Amino acid sequence: MAPIDFGTDPSRYRHLRLEIDGEIARIVIEADEGGGIAPGYELKLNSYDLGVDIELHDAIQRLRFSHPQVRAVVLTSGLDKVFCAGANIRMLAQAGHAQKVNFCKFTNETRNAIEEAGTDSGQAYLAAVNGNAAGGGYELALACDEIIMIDDGSAAVSLPEVPLLAVLPGTGGLTRLVDKRKVRKDLADVVATRSEGVRAKTALAWGLVDAIAPPSKFGQAVLDRAQAAAARSRRAPGGPGIELISLDRQVSEEGLRYPNVTAAFDRGTGLVTITAHGPTEEAPGSMAGAREQGAGFWPLAVTRELDDLILWLRSNETELGTWLIKTSGDAAKALGYERLLAGAAGQDWLADEIRHFAKRTLRRLDVTSRSLFALIEPGSCFAGPLAELAFACDRQFMLNGPWDDDLAPEAGQAAAQPAALTLSAANFGAFPMSNGLSRLASRFPGDPGHVAKLEQLAGRPIEAEEALDLGLVTFAPDDLDWDDEIRIACEERASLSPDALTGMEANLRFAGPETPQTKIFGRLTAWQNWVFTRPNASGPEGALRRYGTGQAGVFDRNRA
Amino acid sequence: MAPIDFGTDPSRYRHLRLEIDGEIARIVIEADEGGGIAPGYELKLNSYDLGVDIELHDAIQRLRFSHPQVRAVVLTSGLDKVFCAGANIRMLAQAGHAQKVNFCKFTNETRNAIEEAGTDSGQAYLAAVNGNAAGGGYELALACDEIIMIDDGSAAVSLPEVPLLAVLPGTGGLTRLVDKRKVRKDLADVVATRSEGVRAKTALAWGLVDAIAPPSKFGQAVLDRAQAAAARSRRAPGGPGIELISLDRQVSEEGLRYPNVTAAFDRGTGLVTITAHGPTEEAPGSMAGAREQGAGFWPLAVTRELDDLILWLRSNETELGTWLIKTSGDAAKALGYERLLAGAAGQDWLADEIRHFAKRTLRRLDVTSRSLFALIEPGSCFAGPLAELAFACDRQFMLNGPWDDDLAPEAGQAAAQPAALTLSAANFGAFPMSNGLSRLASRFPGDPGHVAKLEQLAGRPIEAEEALDLGLVTFAPDDLDWDDEIRIACEERASLSPDALTGMEANLRFAGPETPQTKIFGRLTAWQNWVFTRPNASGPEGALRRYGTGQAGVFDRNRA
Repeated sequence: MAPIDFGTDPSRYRHLRLEIDGEIARIVIEADEGGGIAPGYELKLNSYDLGVDIELHDAIQRLRFSHPQVRAVVLTSGLDKVFCAGANIRMLAQAGHAQKVNFCKFTNETRNAIEEAGTDSGQAYLAAVNGNAAGGGYELALACDEIIMIDDGSAAVSLPEVPLLAVLPGTGGLTRLVDKRKVRKDLADVVATRSEGVRAKTALAWGLVDAIAPPSKFGQAVLDRAQAAAARSRRAPGGPGIELISLDRQVSEEGLRYPNVTAAFDRGTGLVTITAHGPTEEAPGSMAGAREQGAGFWPLAVTRELDDLILWLRSNETELGTWLIKTSGDAAKALGYERLLAGAAGQDWLADEIRHFAKRTLRRLDVTSRSLFALIEPGSCFAGPLAELAFACDRQFMLNGPWDDDLAPEAGQAAAQPAALTLSAANFGAFPMSNGLSRLASRFPGDPGHVAKLEQLAGRPIEAEEALDLGLVTFAPDDLDWDDEIRIACEERASLSPDALTGMEANLRFAGPETPQTKIFGRLTAWQNWVFTRPNASGPEGALRRYGTGQAGVFDRNRA
Repeated sequence: MAPIDFGTDPSRYRHLRLEIDGEIARIVIEADEGGGIAPGYELKLNSYDLGVDIELHDAIQRLRFSHPQVRAVVLTSGLDKVFCAGANIRMLAQAGHAQKVNFCKFTNETRNAIEEAGTDSGQAYLAAVNGNAAGGGYELALACDEIIMIDDGSAAVSLPEVPLLAVLPGTGGLTRLVDKRKVRKDLADVVATRSEGVRAKTALAWGLVDAIAPPSKFGQAVLDRAQAAAARSRRAPGGPGIELISLDRQVSEEGLRYPNVTAAFDRGTGLVTITAHGPTEEAPGSMAGAREQGAGFWPLAVTRELDDLILWLRSNETELGTWLIKTSGDAAKALGYERLLAGAAGQDWLADEIRHFAKRTLRRLDVTSRSLFALIEPGSCFAGPLAELAFACDRQFMLNGPWDDDLAPEAGQAAAQPAALTLSAANFGAFPMSNGLSRLASRFPGDPGHVAKLEQLAGRPIEAEEALDLGLVTFAPDDLDWDDEIRIACEERASLSPDALTGMEANLRFAGPETPQTKIFGRLTAWQNWVFTRPNASGPEGALRRYGTGQAGVFDRNRA
């Protein structure tokens, strides 16, 4: 099977139209029935598969970078009487467990990106529900800031997953009903068990939508609300948009290579070594200089490449269970870019967007079901935002001292210096995890005083022994032990059950409070994963497998 | 197979000794190797099965009701060099999925009860870890307020579930490490993947235990800390303990019958109708009068019976997927008992204990994987604490108006009056859910003003139409429609996948914040359930199934 490629652009869309009209954009979904990313199903009634979602993800991302004037986005359907029928059932029924889980994770991340466009960037999303919104279709609307529903006597919003398919509305539906929209749990129970759903007037009364309008006034009602949302937007100014040109991604048997990020595979041990390369040039003196560099501006380029790599590896390299994360380059130069961006925060939309994008990419790493080990070596540049990569990892290994001349893997001035970590303001709130805490606050949940002490150390390189004392790294072997210790840790990891590791990591990475996002990835997704494995859904007589055959699912009635 | 009976008393213990010495009690675990609750395994090294945990649950409960003078509890082992080896692996390996899940739920509830004994009742638990504490053994210690560990050069605390069994430390271990003990996630990762565990000095340095002592000083160190904990206790006074005499439980093919609670089975539709009966007598005038009634005091008796019934049905009637919850009796009398208890809160240990017990029982209901429908009919007494039963349910059906004479299921004065709900102070914080909110606050998470308005209505019976307007009930059919509507709702529920319902209910019931308890039942348990279903653990070549055979598990290396 061809690998899944998450890169696209509007000229290649098969399922969406992206229309820009001043401050207001429209994403119009009109799925090409024959355009599924895999054979075996048709995308009827605006049902979606990963291919549709890749286009949606791309459109959302481009609106933020290429269309800074857009302050409200209307998400609607190009079909009559149908908004969106949700994830394509036959696609789900034929997918393997890992495919289903990966698909749900990416769609969840994309819906979170819809919400964050409003809260972070002043691009509010309005779902213009012009017809039936079923399952993932209604969940897509739930991810928007506002839902306007047509009141035509037939359109309904519904979550028929439980009654029709014996699975959950797992793309945030259950969580967003009760935690975002504050729908009463008993009404949510009715909604999530009633396959035919709820029509407009009841949907409004129960809080399932924000406004309803008859067909004759629907378009104007949507426009009025979009204009009002645009007027409320506080998006920062700052020149024209940036074109997100296609990434230069080289794929081979040995790994992937982008200009600023490389990934080397070791299939024997199930490892991939990811290296983010620091900037070779000093940061420009202003955001105007950054804008001139366009998509090549280092912080944007390295984030795009990392984001693409994470998605690629998650979908296409599921047997590479351990990711070793390294950096390489000049910490001072990297921090120069961070200073530029942080200095323009709130005043320049591009600076804001790049930092928000880095936040999303780091969150993607947080919920990645792979073991993540940071290797902090001489010549690395784990500084500020790049240090967040280390703190996102399950463990941090830091080499104590410089390489011995004989042991150094490569020559070079930088590698002759001891490894160092450098904290900056970026590590204390600029890139919050989905639990709302910085990674350091979540690392030391019982000790805010320690976090405050670390903040005092910002800007100064911290070498291994001090980093170990400060709790910033897990282990700090010297160069004589380094290779063995890393090898043993990787081999040990490779010997463990991938499922148990996934469950363990999902629990340990999120100390502290829970938010709708963590509830979606923790509570809801975990239950959905479980439900997906159960014969009542996925067995030969399960409802998901039998859907559309005319036969109902046969259930084992025992409650677990 | 004989049904599982959760009732026991110290005279029947096979695995524990309960020793009382003034303010300090000791629970000494010494599992009878041949005393497993089922055949096929031996309880070596203080490993436990459900039978051991039933005794532990009983001991914890009796300490609170029968030994009010106890202010600190030392939990330790009667074996040399072994504290507790955790859940018996062969027992787990041979158990079906529902058995594993039910076992884990009950053990989690019991560990939560250990924590609540300290926070709610001033009975702090100290784990005296006198030898190896592995897996569930260390998790048992983690549930205690303090952990004192022997430093003898060999004892270790460990969580070997991931490396040895390919499952999770699912009895709160992962959550309590990072969220209760605030252990750094990278160190927690090391602990949870290192099968041999961590010895005393490192355990102390990493925050895994609170104190260590060499063998010669261990006993004194434990005693010193127990005495200090007892001295800090603020347990309310109030006369001698209450003997928790055996419940009068009648079991038949048709259901269960206790003096104050009945349960009628409808196996065809997978229903059980549970009725809690209100008091027949007025409340005594004082807690002294309550004490004279002993275990027969109505609020204590009805709570014990409900708690026992929940446990019985969960373990022994797994095909009865929908519980219809009714009450019957005089609301004014029931509220009289609540007034007595609330008036003595904080001044009388027995009043406090009964309310804390009701809180635990309601929380047991919250995490019960059955569909819960409250039926509020004429003649019912959903008032104050009994109204919490209704709010714990997934849906509330309330009959609008009195029964028509011809339709009334039974004669009687009360049944001729319209159904009513009566709120009291009990509904606004006395029985918080495990998310820390009252059930009404969690029902109206976006609307604290509405909750405040409801509080103003306390004491006044609320009939169906008003209850519907106030959002206290889901549906309010009249007597002509009542039977059909309930029947249709029950049949619909019975037609749905039990797994999907379990996942759905677990997500909808806990709007609002998450706490360690909700994380354990939501995030951790959900992942554990998933991991349990995976072939890497439970398949023929899975690590859990192969443990002890000399063969390692064979893993599908794909990350889901």
